[in-house]
Formats: sequence, structure tokens, C-alpha cells
Amino acid sequence: MQQFFSLNTLKLNKNYTDLEKDAHHMLNVMRMSLGDTFRIVDIDNKVYKAEITEVSPLTYLTIEEIDVQKSNISKTVICPLLKGEKFDFMIQKATELGADVFLIYEADRAVVKLDDKKRKNRLTRFKKIIQGASEQSKRLTVPTIEFVGNLKSIDLSQYDLNLFAYEDLNFTKSESLIDVLNNNKKFDNLSIIFGPEGGFSKKEIEVDNLSFVKLGERILRAETAPLYMLSVIDAVME
Amino acid sequence: MQQFFSLNTLKLNKNYTDLEKDAHHMLNVMRMSLGDTFRIVDIDNKVYKAEITEVSPLTYLTIEEIDVQKSNISKTVICPLLKGEKFDFMIQKATELGADVFLIYEADRAVVKLDDKKRKNRLTRFKKIIQGASEQSKRLTVPTIEFVGNLKSIDLSQYDLNLFAYEDLNFTKSESLIDVLNNNKKFDNLSIIFGPEGGFSKKEIEVDNLSFVKLGERILRAETAPLYMLSVIDAVME
Repeated sequence: MQQFFSLNTLKLNKNYTDLEKDAHHMLNVMRMSLGDTFRIVDIDNKVYKAEITEVSPLTYLTIEEIDVQKSNISKTVICPLLKGEKFDFMIQKATELGADVFLIYEADRAVVKLDDKKRKNRLTRFKKIIQGASEQSKRLTVPTIEFVGNLKSIDLSQYDLNLFAYEDLNFTKSESLIDVLNNNKKFDNLSIIFGPEGGFSKKEIEVDNLSFVKLGERILRAETAPLYMLSVIDAVME
Repeated sequence: MQQFFSLNTLKLNKNYTDLEKDAHHMLNVMRMSLGDTFRIVDIDNKVYKAEITEVSPLTYLTIEEIDVQKSNISKTVICPLLKGEKFDFMIQKATELGADVFLIYEADRAVVKLDDKKRKNRLTRFKKIIQGASEQSKRLTVPTIEFVGNLKSIDLSQYDLNLFAYEDLNFTKSESLIDVLNNNKKFDNLSIIFGPEGGFSKKEIEVDNLSFVKLGERILRAETAPLYMLSVIDAVME
């Protein structure tokens, strides 16, 4: 059953017309029609099964409330832009895998640098990718995304745990991810921090409040590491 | 340090010329030159640090043996072809994440079907992707890949555990992946089985020897599910 998001508070057994924005997609692309059902998530994260009761204007009736489990842990992905389509790919998959917030920071060794106008265009595209992945994976919330300054400018004390993916084999402070998670069972929000293709600078690894973690014995690409970490966090914590 | 694979048995402090196949890539693409060092894995999975001692013909000296941990668990990914570039992407990431064997089966609801000639061309491309991802992620072995028949034709009794990713919410036999892994600590080889975009047929889920697992509370795309499972297996077992 396809899922869509409403920007309003919905009640059971009521008709709504607030999916006009999705009407073209639903009727022409997905070929849905009168009587077809779908999932709709309202602004308070309530989920309903809904039925199309009119196609023009697109109207749906909430016919059943769906009980869903919610994740309690908020996961913030802190990473720089990556080259080419790697970043698009990463945010799509990370959305499926449970990321809640993306902060794009200016890494010292960043390969990709953008001016304000290009950033604005990228954000529009990123939001579209995130929205699509949220609907497809039947998430209850749509992750947010924004550009921030360098790593030091982010207040990491707001997170209960900051998992810093650091793969330098000569660096012995890193622990295994599963050990860190098992030793820190009580947290409501965590951040996971990744470097660009070229890795972190010395200054960046001296930021406070970091828990250094190793991600297995192989070297993961910059766009693969967040997916590994989110998968393991989901499996262990949820 | 870049990694390459030799098809021979190497010894320490010897010169070799068996990387001619990689010479163009090393010298022209990666711009390596006389005196540069790299990792080389020989056919017995021994790893050496090597130095380029001559560029034409490309000759290297093994200067140091590198001690590496090997994974004991063999992981076979059993999945159908997926649409577009999703399969390319999946095998690249799955190689980084530790897959050892790929078996491409004919799913009842497969979207992509190929004749023998196209299969042969695809295999050539797949092997190239797998080789590249193996070098980049510094694996000791290069995964194998082949086309097989339908799911029933695969002898699943050869694996200690067959993890079957089944996301139908009305199906209550599925357990959480982490519980299944924690309850089956002793195995040397496991398979992970995935369906096509359209899901499994009824016949396919009646195959013997399956352990049904749920992969979190969201619905993962066909190409994302193997990455989730391999990440969690790596974090829990290795």
C-alpha cells in the first residue's frame, strides 16, 4: 500500500482534499482510481488507511486507523557533500534506514564546494529525494536537511552520543560499533559523523564529545559508512 | 594505500612482474610511479606491502608482510536481478560489506529476464564491479558471482543458516535479525535470500530450511535490504 503525507491533523471517517499536491502522481503515474486505498500519515504522525472517494478534486476518506510502532531514538547524520550522485544515493538509503536529520557540514578536506545559489538548488533536490524515500519506506516522519558551518560549529553536546566513524588503522582509540551501542543503552538522540572522500583533518578529530568507532574490517566508501551504521543502530536499538 | 590482487603465491623480498594487467590503471589512472607503495594480496590471501621497482615492465618488490584478520563466516547473497543500475549498485556495496558469493536466481515475479548472451555480458560487467570494490575496500578475497535456476534448485542445506528477508507485515513467523543471529552463534557459512521488487511468490516462501527475518520497521527497497543484513551480520558476528 502506497504511503503519502498530509500536512494537517486528520480524524477517522472524514473526507479530505489536502492531497492535491500528490494528485498527478497518484492518478497518472501510479494509476490509482476511485475506491483505491493507501496509507496516509498526518502531521501528528497518526497513520490511517484511506480510500479515494472522488478524483476531481482528489478526495479521500480515512477508513481505518493503523497502529504503528514509533522509533524513540532520533538519529542525526552529520556529513559533508560527496562527489557526483553519491550524496543523493546516501540520503535516499539513509532515509530508508531511519535517519531523522541531515546536517551537511564544511569539511576541511571536502572535495565538493558550492556557492549559496547552488546550495539552494541542491537542497530542493535533496528534499525531493528524502520525501520520495520516506513515502516508499513507510516512515512516519520526513527527515530534515540543512547546510551548516564546519564541524566545530555544531553543538555536539545536544546529542547523548556522537558516533564518529574513523577508519585509520593506526588509531587505537576506536571501539567496535556494537560495543559502544551495548555500553550506552540509554539515549534518546544520537549523531553519526562521517568525513569526506579524503578523510578527516587533524583538527576535526580533536572536536569534543566524540565516540570513535570502527566499522568492520574492510574500508567502506564515504557513502556506504552511514548505511552500515544506521543498519546496525536500527537492528540493535529498535 | 591502494590494494591489488596477484594470481600467484608471493614471498617476501622478491620482485614480481605479474601486475601487467593493472599497469595502465596504476601508472596512468592512479599516477603511481617508481618507489610508490601499495598492498598486494596473493592467491593464498597473504597480504604484503609492495614497492614499485621498475615501471616497464611493471615490477614490484614485496617489502613487508601485513598481518590481517580474516572473517571466518562465508556469506552467500541469493537474489534475483533488479531493474536498472540497482543490481550494479547492490553488488558493489555488498562486496564492501563482506559478501563472498552472489547467486542470481530466477524469481517467479522477476521483473528483469535475460537471454544467455545478455547474461554473459552482464556477468563480465558484474565481475568488474566486484573486483573494483574488493580492491577499494581492501578485502582479501574477491566474491564470485553466477546465474542459477529458481530458488528451489539451490541446495540450501549446504548453509548453516538461510536468512530469508520477508517483510509482509501480516506474516508472524518472522523474527528480528539480531535475535536470530544471537540464537545461532555457531555457523561457518550462511546465505541471505532476497526477493525481486515485486516480492516473493507463495511457492518461494515454502522452500525448506528458511529462517524468516524482519529488517526493522520500515520497508526497505530490494537493493537496500542486502546492505542492511550484511552490515548487521558484520557488526554482530565479526
